[in-house]
Amino acid sequence: MPPTITAFERSPDGGQGQARDTRVRWVLEEVGQHYEVRPVAFAAMKEPAHRALNPFGQIPTYEDRALALFGSGAIVLHIAELHPGLLPDDANGRARAISWMFAALSTIEPPIPERETAMLLERDRPWHEQRLPLVEERLRGRLSDLSRRLGDAEWLDGSFSAGDLVMVGVLRRLNRSGLLEEYPNLAAYVLRGEARPAFKRAFECQLAFNTRKDAAP
Amino acid sequence: MPPTITAFERSPDGGQGQARDTRVRWVLEEVGQHYEVRPVAFAAMKEPAHRALNPFGQIPTYEDRALALFGSGAIVLHIAELHPGLLPDDANGRARAISWMFAALSTIEPPIPERETAMLLERDRPWHEQRLPLVEERLRGRLSDLSRRLGDAEWLDGSFSAGDLVMVGVLRRLNRSGLLEEYPNLAAYVLRGEARPAFKRAFECQLAFNTRKDAAP
Repeated sequence: MPPTITAFERSPDGGQGQARDTRVRWVLEEVGQHYEVRPVAFAAMKEPAHRALNPFGQIPTYEDRALALFGSGAIVLHIAELHPGLLPDDANGRARAISWMFAALSTIEPPIPERETAMLLERDRPWHEQRLPLVEERLRGRLSDLSRRLGDAEWLDGSFSAGDLVMVGVLRRLNRSGLLEEYPNLAAYVLRGEARPAFKRAFECQLAFNTRKDAAP
Repeated sequence: MPPTITAFERSPDGGQGQARDTRVRWVLEEVGQHYEVRPVAFAAMKEPAHRALNPFGQIPTYEDRALALFGSGAIVLHIAELHPGLLPDDANGRARAISWMFAALSTIEPPIPERETAMLLERDRPWHEQRLPLVEERLRGRLSDLSRRLGDAEWLDGSFSAGDLVMVGVLRRLNRSGLLEEYPNLAAYVLRGEARPAFKRAFECQLAFNTRKDAAP
């Protein structure tokens, strides 16, 4: 029995690969692990059956026999630990790769949905026009720090790792924002991640899944 | 040589233990690992020497011989992996404990500084009064999910783990907000964490550190 992950029944982005199941599909493709995908309708995400898997009523989740995990960070780390290739063999390099996973999810990512909230949910609010530049300034601070550290390196710390996978997955959320282009080395870094064969397979799978005929519109 | 961590030269909270070095001190106390603390002045945090340790110019960092790590999540996980007691012995329980660390840092924590920003930096902005309830509503959504999952359990998943340590460290940021009291089981959970001898030692150490005579005011 291959492991099962969950994904939106139909992603709100229509297949741009911004939903977090794409990161999980990517890591599974990197290690060559076959997997099943169970779609979850929006209404079902907040029901007890799904909350038993993810207490926050979100996707993705991961089930493999007796193990159930939730959240893209924990799932990517688990897969990277089960298979060779995504974490350095030496203990110090491994710890540093994991520190980039945490940095991606807890330092770089949080201001991104904050900006999306400002753009989508608060666009009609009277403060929108004045506040958006403040939100973007905070985001630019983080991107600028990351850009300085990456420099002209190919990946964040030696070879491609689970840390890069999560960081590229997070930065891709800015693909249509115009912000990434202000940091050409970060834009090129994202393109390098997206050029990996495993990413391409993951992207195509989620695109086919999110545009399939039997999915709710 | 014991490992060295960094902390604010003097924490902006004056010793309430809200700076992230407290979580690192806590995990080190839990496993009985002696450590040194190097204070970093605000001006020095954005300088190249400190950015070499933490690219985002923040504390905490961790140095142990050839290894340098940054970020409380990565440091807590590293310490928990080096010593017994903070991660379950079985692989599935271990993966679940780590998923709570990611949930604490990427699901529960992000709306907390968003609220703090709204309270501190945007208090004079014309939108403050209308916007704060929206920010708090998002935060309550996460707390409500967490409260439902915790139920009347003592810890999130079996015995106290690194996942609880990070979650309590995050929830403590709400100690003076009044929000935690809306979820009595979460307030009691935080108190249970704070009652652990290792937390008390860590708290006293950071308090003594942040109120020492030679620290800049």
